[in-house]
Amino acid sequence: MKFTDATTEEINAVMEKSWDAFLAYRKLPLQRRWEFMYAMANELDNIATPLVEIASQETNLPKDRLESERKRTVFQLKSYADACKRGDWLDIRIDTAIPDKTPPKPDIRKMMVPLGPVVVFGASNFPFAYSTAGGDTACAFAAGCPVIVKAHPAHAETSEMVANAIFAAAKKTHMPDGIFAHIHGEGFETGKTLVLHPRTKAVGFTGSFAGGKALFDVANQRKEPIPVFSEMGSVNPVFLLPEKLKQSAEQTAKMYAASITASVGQFCTNPGILIGIKGEALDRFLKSLSDEIKNIAPATMLHPGIAKAFVEKRQKALAQNGVHVAAVSSQQPQENQGLPTIATVSADEFLKNVLLHQEVFGPYSILVICENDQQMMEVALHLEGQLTSTIIATENDVQQHEPLIEAIKNICGRFIMNGVPTGVEVCLSMNHGGPYPATTDSRFTSVGADGIKRFVRPISFQNWPDSLLPDELKNDNPLGLWRTVNDSLSREAI
Amino acid sequence: MKFTDATTEEINAVMEKSWDAFLAYRKLPLQRRWEFMYAMANELDNIATPLVEIASQETNLPKDRLESERKRTVFQLKSYADACKRGDWLDIRIDTAIPDKTPPKPDIRKMMVPLGPVVVFGASNFPFAYSTAGGDTACAFAAGCPVIVKAHPAHAETSEMVANAIFAAAKKTHMPDGIFAHIHGEGFETGKTLVLHPRTKAVGFTGSFAGGKALFDVANQRKEPIPVFSEMGSVNPVFLLPEKLKQSAEQTAKMYAASITASVGQFCTNPGILIGIKGEALDRFLKSLSDEIKNIAPATMLHPGIAKAFVEKRQKALAQNGVHVAAVSSQQPQENQGLPTIATVSADEFLKNVLLHQEVFGPYSILVICENDQQMMEVALHLEGQLTSTIIATENDVQQHEPLIEAIKNICGRFIMNGVPTGVEVCLSMNHGGPYPATTDSRFTSVGADGIKRFVRPISFQNWPDSLLPDELKNDNPLGLWRTVNDSLSREAI
Repeated sequence: MKFTDATTEEINAVMEKSWDAFLAYRKLPLQRRWEFMYAMANELDNIATPLVEIASQETNLPKDRLESERKRTVFQLKSYADACKRGDWLDIRIDTAIPDKTPPKPDIRKMMVPLGPVVVFGASNFPFAYSTAGGDTACAFAAGCPVIVKAHPAHAETSEMVANAIFAAAKKTHMPDGIFAHIHGEGFETGKTLVLHPRTKAVGFTGSFAGGKALFDVANQRKEPIPVFSEMGSVNPVFLLPEKLKQSAEQTAKMYAASITASVGQFCTNPGILIGIKGEALDRFLKSLSDEIKNIAPATMLHPGIAKAFVEKRQKALAQNGVHVAAVSSQQPQENQGLPTIATVSADEFLKNVLLHQEVFGPYSILVICENDQQMMEVALHLEGQLTSTIIATENDVQQHEPLIEAIKNICGRFIMNGVPTGVEVCLSMNHGGPYPATTDSRFTSVGADGIKRFVRPISFQNWPDSLLPDELKNDNPLGLWRTVNDSLSREAI
Repeated sequence: MKFTDATTEEINAVMEKSWDAFLAYRKLPLQRRWEFMYAMANELDNIATPLVEIASQETNLPKDRLESERKRTVFQLKSYADACKRGDWLDIRIDTAIPDKTPPKPDIRKMMVPLGPVVVFGASNFPFAYSTAGGDTACAFAAGCPVIVKAHPAHAETSEMVANAIFAAAKKTHMPDGIFAHIHGEGFETGKTLVLHPRTKAVGFTGSFAGGKALFDVANQRKEPIPVFSEMGSVNPVFLLPEKLKQSAEQTAKMYAASITASVGQFCTNPGILIGIKGEALDRFLKSLSDEIKNIAPATMLHPGIAKAFVEKRQKALAQNGVHVAAVSSQQPQENQGLPTIATVSADEFLKNVLLHQEVFGPYSILVICENDQQMMEVALHLEGQLTSTIIATENDVQQHEPLIEAIKNICGRFIMNGVPTGVEVCLSMNHGGPYPATTDSRFTSVGADGIKRFVRPISFQNWPDSLLPDELKNDNPLGLWRTVNDSLSREAI
């Protein structure tokens, strides 16, 4: 099946329709948004088998992995729909009038309202959870924004199928025409045209640094700049602290061999850099990790382009000064397969060579060997912004390395202790974000219902009579929302 | 008194010191931030008389106006300090572990942490409340960020005096060295150097569109782009709806004559455009407004540059096709005084000429005369983003003009009914922000304690033992904060 690129005229028509849908959708009660999102979830359940079949053909991902991602996507839609209705994200603030103040203080009530049509660019590596009906789309719908998805060309047919499920859900729940649109386009131009369109009010992107940064730049060059949340991946450093490593070198190695190679290393939270201090414990860790990696078979990557990029980036990294291969899978890779690889380098060389700080998207990780604590601190201070950082540490390790812990905290969006960064739980406490270049705005997350906040803005109503206020702000609190009233949180009526 | 521009070397030294201060300050408990901010407020009380004296000399603003702005600044510091300690802005989310889930769900806890050193550019028109110890500075300190203020050259001595008060407060409360810095510089280069410095992590700005947009562009061209919140003013349209205008033409005119000329029109919420439908009620309104304006004396503007710009922009606006002067003050303006002026134009001409949509900073407003409801709607649809919009309307007017009300809502950050936009209450429900070009990011406010959120980002702690977590996230909730625990808001221990 082949899809034609959308023309500028088609995009113009789509965006005007989105705008009209925005005017209608933003006025619908939260309950209606909830119904629409649950209907989407149901539609995705209805087409489970053919959907996973097609996705598996397009992405080379195993069906059980895809089915669990599909379930996650369904859960995500329902969970954000619940959060939408719970309404905490509305950040309602009410200050009642004080007429006898000088000058009199008016009644002011603030809540979040949607920004407008949101353009979403899905990820190649998560055809469901971070794509057409994925987190960005769910957040935008919860916020009250129509969505225009630019289908990822690597799984365009999967995307089309999911889009049809969304259209079906929209129809069943009587959503305004144009609440969702699905656009195909092979190159950058289609995306650029969408981001430049004056009716577009925000952008969600998951993918490469090059793609995410380019869209960010385009958005900032508009006459009216708009917010872009690009999640652009990272190397997710793992710091192996001495006491814990001594206690659990082999156990940690096993855990990481699995994490580095899960889904052929194609996770944006893949641990691409391991940092340890030379010595007996690190030798045991490396030996154990190497033994594990040798036994992990190469597997087919998402598409030939990604496999080719992996081969090139891996080769380039391995060709750098002082980089050595510690272990590769004992099996030869077939065409488009990613070869599990562990490399090593001294911290001295690592600190001198920023190329080694960059992501090699695939089943690859490099162990940076430090001379001592101080050099580990230097490495932490030289790393750029990350989605996650991890420490393998005892409580004592943490207490003994306070400045290091602070330095690591400062560069990451999620800080894991004695675990692996792969596996991004869908829950309100999740932060899937982080300092640049992990994302274009560290103040937001793209996973968890707080991701809704990317697509809303506050508005204050001053001196409005109760009868004309939105239900969310009315005195008797008909929706039973949590609201900050005169500086105190409450669900009571006023 | 004359101040020398900071050199690049001096700025480098200041920023390194700010960074060191950041590492120490962000670890201090909220109580310590509260103490520091209250000490700042006290210092500003201690120097009240000489401070208002100097500010009056530098800005030409009357002393009673300045004293009330000073008091507002003191209130603002205390109120944001209280909000800092109350901690709602930390957006704490806790999801406890579910070990028997497949795969096991780890314990994850999220809170806000400071971004790093914040560069603040104060406003010419509010030497206290939006300047050196103003809202941006208070928000940044509450967030846990050091502040570097670029003094406004129009009130550099006032700024220096306030800076010394901040230094004194920092010393008395044992704040880390470098928590605050004060930089002088006449031109754009000093500001640019500050924004480009790699240690700078966010920017707060209040002032002109040209200045705010230029800093936004500089920040986005950095290797590591950083968030800039520029509040750039607006024309704050006022829509006069028919039923209410008929009832209260004269009363509304009086209220607006005062609002348009308050502080010589030098408010970013000054109502620069009034929109009405032609007829007997609008004639009465215009006559009454004109009578009032004639009786309001010209007054000296903030500085000669602003007075000159007012003369030029006013002249240019009045020279446009179809623009007529309806009334000016009956008194001749002296040098550097702003002449209160009301102009009129037909909606036809207004819609054709975007120059008329732009701010004339000073005591000037233009009445746009529409043929009918539909043309008023057209005007609403043609306006850019605004800090505020106002309707003068009965409940019946609102119900009869639903699409118009929606269109107005869509372009503003604060929506006032039967009031004036001037007067920005310092409270949590305030939104002093709005769609571009009113600000560079409509998702934030610069007034009210929610302004803290501009300078923080979330971080998730995954799988950390209770003893190593920050107090904010510990099981027993020692700070008594509101937290969302497993999707429910609570102040209980876990």
